[in-house]
Amino acid sequence: MRWNRKDLLGMQDLSAEEINHVLDTAFSFREISTRPIKKVPALRGKTIVNLFFEPSTRTRTSFELAGKRLSADILNITASASSLVKGETLIDTAANLEALKIDMIIMRHSASGAPHFLASRMKASVINAGDGWHEHPTQALLDMLTIKDKLGKIDGVKAVIIGDILHSRVGRSNIWALTKLGAQVSVCAPKTLIPRFIEELGVKVYCDVSEALRDVDVVYILRIQLERQKANYFPSIREYARLFGIDREKIKHLRKNVLIMHPGPINRDVELSSEVADSQNSVILEQVTNGLAVRMAALYLCSGGEVESEDTY
Amino acid sequence: MRWNRKDLLGMQDLSAEEINHVLDTAFSFREISTRPIKKVPALRGKTIVNLFFEPSTRTRTSFELAGKRLSADILNITASASSLVKGETLIDTAANLEALKIDMIIMRHSASGAPHFLASRMKASVINAGDGWHEHPTQALLDMLTIKDKLGKIDGVKAVIIGDILHSRVGRSNIWALTKLGAQVSVCAPKTLIPRFIEELGVKVYCDVSEALRDVDVVYILRIQLERQKANYFPSIREYARLFGIDREKIKHLRKNVLIMHPGPINRDVELSSEVADSQNSVILEQVTNGLAVRMAALYLCSGGEVESEDTY
Amino acid sequence: MRWNRKDLLGMQDLSAEEINHVLDTAFSFREISTRPIKKVPALRGKTIVNLFFEPSTRTRTSFELAGKRLSADILNITASASSLVKGETLIDTAANLEALKIDMIIMRHSASGAPHFLASRMKASVINAGDGWHEHPTQALLDMLTIKDKLGKIDGVKAVIIGDILHSRVGRSNIWALTKLGAQVSVCAPKTLIPRFIEELGVKVYCDVSEALRDVDVVYILRIQLERQKANYFPSIREYARLFGIDREKIKHLRKNVLIMHPGPINRDVELSSEVADSQNSVILEQVTNGLAVRMAALYLCSGGEVESEDTY
Repeated sequence: MRWNRKDLLGMQDLSAEEINHVLDTAFSFREISTRPIKKVPALRGKTIVNLFFEPSTRTRTSFELAGKRLSADILNITASASSLVKGETLIDTAANLEALKIDMIIMRHSASGAPHFLASRMKASVINAGDGWHEHPTQALLDMLTIKDKLGKIDGVKAVIIGDILHSRVGRSNIWALTKLGAQVSVCAPKTLIPRFIEELGVKVYCDVSEALRDVDVVYILRIQLERQKANYFPSIREYARLFGIDREKIKHLRKNVLIMHPGPINRDVELSSEVADSQNSVILEQVTNGLAVRMAALYLCSGGEVESEDTY
Repeated sequence: MRWNRKDLLGMQDLSAEEINHVLDTAFSFREISTRPIKKVPALRGKTIVNLFFEPSTRTRTSFELAGKRLSADILNITASASSLVKGETLIDTAANLEALKIDMIIMRHSASGAPHFLASRMKASVINAGDGWHEHPTQALLDMLTIKDKLGKIDGVKAVIIGDILHSRVGRSNIWALTKLGAQVSVCAPKTLIPRFIEELGVKVYCDVSEALRDVDVVYILRIQLERQKANYFPSIREYARLFGIDREKIKHLRKNVLIMHPGPINRDVELSSEVADSQNSVILEQVTNGLAVRMAALYLCSGGEVESEDTY
Repeated sequence: MRWNRKDLLGMQDLSAEEINHVLDTAFSFREISTRPIKKVPALRGKTIVNLFFEPSTRTRTSFELAGKRLSADILNITASASSLVKGETLIDTAANLEALKIDMIIMRHSASGAPHFLASRMKASVINAGDGWHEHPTQALLDMLTIKDKLGKIDGVKAVIIGDILHSRVGRSNIWALTKLGAQVSVCAPKTLIPRFIEELGVKVYCDVSEALRDVDVVYILRIQLERQKANYFPSIREYARLFGIDREKIKHLRKNVLIMHPGPINRDVELSSEVADSQNSVILEQVTNGLAVRMAALYLCSGGEVESEDTY
């Protein structure tokens, strides 16, 4: 197939075929980061802007490295330093960047839909690096690559996502991706952290972890935002950890090769015990490695790289 | 002609011939940013430092991109992060950068004359990216390129600069540039925002917008610093907008191809209405595009690039 | 000899032979920064992370430039922006960077031993850019290069280090380096700023500057942290300057070619008078230049560069 999109905004928009195409491209890019010279000229002379309205070292770093390994020029712009503090509108920021003839914007924003708005107004490609509670597509793609890599397939895999589903763009993007690729997905959290109508996305809902874990291939643990406690979404961190925190005891009956996944950074011994996080079943660091490959693929495909792909890597 | 300056400090110092030489160089560089591979090796192996003592995303980004498109290595140093907070003097900062064998400093500082001071003490080139209320030469150069491009000439053009002339380095640099190139320049603002003796620069002064606008080719609107209101330079934002804000009504009698210019970022519907800012007459985004080209030219010429210019682009 | 270390953590670990090997490599790299094209492809395609948990423009800039002049890709991560603010442990940060297949971490941290901890857990190289009060090895190496360059040797040289020895990683690294290379070292400070058992490192201790300066070849002045005054380590800045501040008067009897050294940034007219700092004897700016060369050497050697060194510079 050919990739025909200028933007990567969410998993909701993508077909299973498109998702698999990104994964295949990422797979072939992953090898570049194991070479002595970790660099290919695929995006030489392209300008990519990291436009982050929320701070994020991990995601920003992963995208920056992805761009550098493809030889692109990268500019980092963070909101606090930007002229947005002078009251400029988002659309003016976009128009100004376009006037500088940049090729691609990687955008994180606290408002759901902000990257979509930008993408509709620009010729440049827009990659969503997380918008509000909405989507975080490259996170879901790296998770899919990890599962496919470890279990050989996603179709028919049984996955449970545990934690704050309500506020999680990671959860939402993974639900879209997993269901599109044929996985059976369930979610598990205190009732206050389950969004209404979530069943309509094709997932089962559990409030009891031991039930939710029964017979699963993948345990996907979301980071709990410690500040949610103040808003009374759950009674206490200790209570949450006791009921929903994944530890050795809770997973001891699971199949031997069950995958433990987490988008990072981990609150150790809150939503996930250190023992499990550092166990053989944990693929958390593979997720990070795959994140780099998936972001290289996203940059490459959205820049229209396929046309000349033969000789670029 | 040959460019013989190591620094670009202000429009006051430059001859008309020198200004035109930068514009011609910028014109030829502008095309690079429209190529699929937006990069030439002209400044490969040169080290440029963005030394910003005042925050600025736009200008810093434009210079950083200019350097990258010429293949230079760029370092960003901002004052808050710098050892200046440890009490180091400006001259020690300069001496230390020189000891690192950098080639060029792009400097923004709240003190008028700071870049001139640095330039006189260093072998490295210094480019003024805005010093106090004094000058912002690359802004004036990009404005000249835009006018020349759109109207075919600057000589004989009638331009009015509207807004806070008193505190504006953009206004001052544009007055120098426009008058040197033969334009007829007037300024228009509340009396409190007009510097004394401004007529000595060869400009007419108006306090009434409708008079000031009569028969002009270029309307250059300065950004109003909203915090000036507190200092009682004008009674209220609403009052300022009503009397001096440029909207469709105020410019309806002007010639059809009048240019609307603004250095950005716009306070929409304060000094400039959205309707006019986004109209056919507005060349505000062309200004941004030309800014990149002018900065590439400035970096190139000050680095002594001309000697080997034949084969570099 | 061959360099067999993956890390550069401190002077305490290095043999005299190893120190001299870094100096020889740095000497040959220094010339690169005087070329019109200040860049060699030695580390092309390598990824280096500047991981700074304490702010530092000078050291960070010097390392960043060193990396760029060797054509490496550099990523800057500062603690305030990092997910460490989200409570991530140091070891998780390291594991995540390793998962991104980076080659080298340059680390500054307020905790003594932090880089050693990281180095023991990572395949990537770790370069200590300052850890607590412990060590700052590239500072000592650049100081050694400067002395060797200026005096032709270090063996037998008589050096005094003046200032806050207690809290100084620069002092400690220099004591190790100087004694290993055969210099006679003494330290001089108010008693409150001399660490206990310092004599065991093979140095003489003075509390009187005129005694300490007798017959020395090198006067190494440490920066006084002005905030120490509050902790009552010395009665007042003025008192400190009068008794321990190095001025023309105090050094007038010293040999004509005595070297005045300081790691920067200087508190002018506190620990060092401007007159002496800017005198013929001062080699403070040579230290900065040598710092760049030493850091290029450190990056190069720790990346295993020697194997292919023949054709890379």
